[in-house]
Amino acid sequence: MHAIGVDIGGTKIAVGVVDEDGRILAQVRRETAADDVADIDRAIADAVTELTKEHEVGAIGLAAAGFVSPDRQGVNFAPNIAWREYPLAAKVSALIDTDVPIVVENDANAAGWAEFRFGAGRAATDMIMLTVGTGLGGAVIVGGELVRGKWGAAAEVGHMRVVPEGHYCGCGHEGCWEQYASGSALVRDAQHAAVANPKRAARLLEMAGGSPDEIRGPQVTRAAKEGDELAIELLATLGRWIGEGAASVAALLDPEIFVIGGGVGAAGELLLGPVRRGYEAQLSALGHRPVAQIELARHGNEAGIVGAADLARR
Amino acid sequence: MHAIGVDIGGTKIAVGVVDEDGRILAQVRRETAADDVADIDRAIADAVTELTKEHEVGAIGLAAAGFVSPDRQGVNFAPNIAWREYPLAAKVSALIDTDVPIVVENDANAAGWAEFRFGAGRAATDMIMLTVGTGLGGAVIVGGELVRGKWGAAAEVGHMRVVPEGHYCGCGHEGCWEQYASGSALVRDAQHAAVANPKRAARLLEMAGGSPDEIRGPQVTRAAKEGDELAIELLATLGRWIGEGAASVAALLDPEIFVIGGGVGAAGELLLGPVRRGYEAQLSALGHRPVAQIELARHGNEAGIVGAADLARR
Amino acid sequence: MHAIGVDIGGTKIAVGVVDEDGRILAQVRRETAADDVADIDRAIADAVTELTKEHEVGAIGLAAAGFVSPDRQGVNFAPNIAWREYPLAAKVSALIDTDVPIVVENDANAAGWAEFRFGAGRAATDMIMLTVGTGLGGAVIVGGELVRGKWGAAAEVGHMRVVPEGHYCGCGHEGCWEQYASGSALVRDAQHAAVANPKRAARLLEMAGGSPDEIRGPQVTRAAKEGDELAIELLATLGRWIGEGAASVAALLDPEIFVIGGGVGAAGELLLGPVRRGYEAQLSALGHRPVAQIELARHGNEAGIVGAADLARR
Amino acid sequence: MHAIGVDIGGTKIAVGVVDEDGRILAQVRRETAADDVADIDRAIADAVTELTKEHEVGAIGLAAAGFVSPDRQGVNFAPNIAWREYPLAAKVSALIDTDVPIVVENDANAAGWAEFRFGAGRAATDMIMLTVGTGLGGAVIVGGELVRGKWGAAAEVGHMRVVPEGHYCGCGHEGCWEQYASGSALVRDAQHAAVANPKRAARLLEMAGGSPDEIRGPQVTRAAKEGDELAIELLATLGRWIGEGAASVAALLDPEIFVIGGGVGAAGELLLGPVRRGYEAQLSALGHRPVAQIELARHGNEAGIVGAADLARR
Repeated sequence: MHAIGVDIGGTKIAVGVVDEDGRILAQVRRETAADDVADIDRAIADAVTELTKEHEVGAIGLAAAGFVSPDRQGVNFAPNIAWREYPLAAKVSALIDTDVPIVVENDANAAGWAEFRFGAGRAATDMIMLTVGTGLGGAVIVGGELVRGKWGAAAEVGHMRVVPEGHYCGCGHEGCWEQYASGSALVRDAQHAAVANPKRAARLLEMAGGSPDEIRGPQVTRAAKEGDELAIELLATLGRWIGEGAASVAALLDPEIFVIGGGVGAAGELLLGPVRRGYEAQLSALGHRPVAQIELARHGNEAGIVGAADLARR
Repeated sequence: MHAIGVDIGGTKIAVGVVDEDGRILAQVRRETAADDVADIDRAIADAVTELTKEHEVGAIGLAAAGFVSPDRQGVNFAPNIAWREYPLAAKVSALIDTDVPIVVENDANAAGWAEFRFGAGRAATDMIMLTVGTGLGGAVIVGGELVRGKWGAAAEVGHMRVVPEGHYCGCGHEGCWEQYASGSALVRDAQHAAVANPKRAARLLEMAGGSPDEIRGPQVTRAAKEGDELAIELLATLGRWIGEGAASVAALLDPEIFVIGGGVGAAGELLLGPVRRGYEAQLSALGHRPVAQIELARHGNEAGIVGAADLARR
Repeated sequence: MHAIGVDIGGTKIAVGVVDEDGRILAQVRRETAADDVADIDRAIADAVTELTKEHEVGAIGLAAAGFVSPDRQGVNFAPNIAWREYPLAAKVSALIDTDVPIVVENDANAAGWAEFRFGAGRAATDMIMLTVGTGLGGAVIVGGELVRGKWGAAAEVGHMRVVPEGHYCGCGHEGCWEQYASGSALVRDAQHAAVANPKRAARLLEMAGGSPDEIRGPQVTRAAKEGDELAIELLATLGRWIGEGAASVAALLDPEIFVIGGGVGAAGELLLGPVRRGYEAQLSALGHRPVAQIELARHGNEAGIVGAADLARR
Repeated sequence: MHAIGVDIGGTKIAVGVVDEDGRILAQVRRETAADDVADIDRAIADAVTELTKEHEVGAIGLAAAGFVSPDRQGVNFAPNIAWREYPLAAKVSALIDTDVPIVVENDANAAGWAEFRFGAGRAATDMIMLTVGTGLGGAVIVGGELVRGKWGAAAEVGHMRVVPEGHYCGCGHEGCWEQYASGSALVRDAQHAAVANPKRAARLLEMAGGSPDEIRGPQVTRAAKEGDELAIELLATLGRWIGEGAASVAALLDPEIFVIGGGVGAAGELLLGPVRRGYEAQLSALGHRPVAQIELARHGNEAGIVGAADLARR
């Protein structure tokens, strides 16, 4: 059965028809206003209507950044869109002509599910997705099933605390994992290193026009690939934090594979090597259990569409 | 269907017949030698044979402290018993006359399952058990199912890292949760407090005959109940660590209830209050999600028997 | 002998004639431009010339925020003024008509010295000044002498590290003491508390017009004095960090008194109580040594003038 | 003027005549009982009497592990000898025939002073001694003067806190520097590494006869010199902690040189390189101030005798 997946961002909506093998057969996009929830409803309905003219689909999955209600019909709260206890599925349903089932999923869960079904985790039954971007998102799959938690708030991996009284986090707490294991953390560490020791950061500063504040993540990756010692160390620190935190997750869930998504994957082995070393260094009972695989995600930005569609038709 | 549950300790084995409501209908015990695995097999077989004379059972569950093999037929490694890749179910089966199915379960998983089915968690679908004893053990139940992990090593909650470069742990790492959230941590903190500030520890030292090294957990609980300020603070610190760590678990799994087992439960509200405050203080997205319940376990030492029996017959 | 003290801020200069008892007999002010070092020289010279018309002085002390050269004649580097290896004393000397000796002192050292000679530390021989403001500054007095260090960079107490991988600091490092023990830390903690738990921060949010970002230090102090539980806790946390860090300083220097300066002193015992408890809780060898006094500073903004003048005439 | 220096250990006393260049002209030893303070008095007196038969001396310095009274005449408290408010100088004086002045000094201060006057720090005015042994001891010299603190308890560097809620310390606190920067920390880290990852610790385990508990510091140094990766990393971790802590000391005191004493010095550059890198990585205002030298101590076990003698005659 084909299904439609919808990836709802703050200002853009991407909608695709997905086949049973996870391929996107057709795709359309719409622009929206993050603070106008009715506008988002209409944009989704419009795109769905366009695609269903030429494709027969059996289900629609809506991937949204926020806390999805346990019945998977609405969004209780979203940090970047004005949804509050919002019945998203019903709203969209009222605007379209078809009565196929509509379900809402957290966007990180959807992306993780795409990797589980069609990507790096397709051979696994127990997988953890870690999406290392602005923050650190994730998805948890146990025994072949997506774990949503009692109230739909599971897999907020970025807010596990890894350093008591550590870096401040936007969530109001300190020491959250995403403040150490994210693209933002990489950039901030690079900027601070350039203040603490400008000589050592000469190459990064050069790339950033001399200003520590202008250093960006892709520059760090590029400098590291050129062999810059500080940049390599910064990626290694990021990787170490990903790996060490993953070892704590493994203590709880004993997964078969961790899949690392997000832009930092561009650093390749410069990141993945330190992730694996950090994981192994902190893994409890090493030698008495297999060591989980740690692999890069296979899907990019389209993972949300694919995962939402596939979860909807199950 | 009735089932037999076997709780295998280092030197004692407790075996009971468990009915469908989690009640133990009959129970026997045997003494064993921890380093003689054949002796343990025989003791189990002997006890099972005795009980099956008078009780018809449909399954046998063996609860063991160690890494249970994924097929639930053996123990891959145990810290306190000489099992190494040991086919426990087959060994016991060969010594008994009945051919009912035998399964092996991790003992903390079995105890957690008893709480889930017949105890503090019986109304829940998503539960975390935290057994605060010498170490910190646990069990994870997601969507009504026990989570064993890919290789049977899940729910080693005590080895999540909560303080980088923190207290040394017997596992070889530093900063493991159980080094902050266990009866041993309570005792060690009390002993250190008595060295750092003997005046403040006057009551605890009095109970311990004047020697910091002789302070024990039940003394701390007793002193706290009498109103001793230091003892109350020590229990509050223990509770805070339990609660704060639980918030990290909730970020990952969003459970409905945490059940706290182990001897420290005797401290009652002096422990539970700080656990709840620590949990709420660190819970991500407080206000956008319900706050999980935190309750004391209902079962004591017999939880292993009950849980093993119930898991075996499923 | 009377002496002139000059307190050089980024945009304001305060100049006073100080008698032997630390009293300011006359005072004038000038506005300056932080990026125009010649303008600052002229403003100082102008003010000094004005004061010396009516007062006979034997020395001039210039208090400057920055690294003062070991010969106390110039400023090697200043974070907020464009001095780089700048011969400040000679520059000013060339613009005035008197040939009394001119010396340059770090402003925090000058303020600490004023407290040592005429304020809370006047009975002591070994004193640590901690100025808790935007950052955490300080002064160290050992055996009656100001400690400047080999290269004039001593007493940068705010940059002792208290939390590995802790809060980011403007200096480029992580976990600096001033990120936990300063007015800025208080404000940031209050703002984060209001995000993490708005209900608990109701009073602070009310004072700040509903916006966490608008919470300011004096509001926290005011709310605490009204009895607001969160505000009291925030001041207690600030106090604890001051006291615990002070215990580390005491391990190194065993001072007789700590003097706490800066605006947070307005909180009085709500701050000082936790400082003392934190100090005692972490003090090594408590019971085998006296516990240093911890007192609020007696001087306010004029401490820089008084201390600079007094150091100049010694 | 020649002087006698006495180094009082728990069970051994070493006594020497020291000339003005810090050379030991004659030396004798005595065995004592740590719990019999009168016996220690007699042993000192006996040794002093023997040496003064052939050497004219102008002062006697007694170096003792403990808190020395501010008048330098007694020991207020010692961890390993039964001195409590003990008038050591008077007791010894009563047993000898000469009336040269006798002063008591803390043993780490005495050893640091020897380095300052005749060893690695002899060209400096501001020096920090760090003695990395079972614990972490030290001495602080500011402006050419030994810093004893108001109550004789200065330079307890090992009890500065470097990790909140970190490793337990014998002093009753957590996270003391000496629990990370001492020979004991090195050994404990090595032992834990061998538990966490026996494969990686193969060489160390081989040296220790297969038992993690039997790993000792000199083995780590030897393995590191052979090129063993884990051993090199363990020394680097020790060095990093020494260097990072030293940067905190520098924030406070801005010394010219750090002198590293104790047995771990045998590791040479394998230790010193990481110390220097850790120091520079954490030094505040790097680039705006010179970087202090970090050197190994020149004196070994005789530093206590030499320093005590030299301090006595000043």
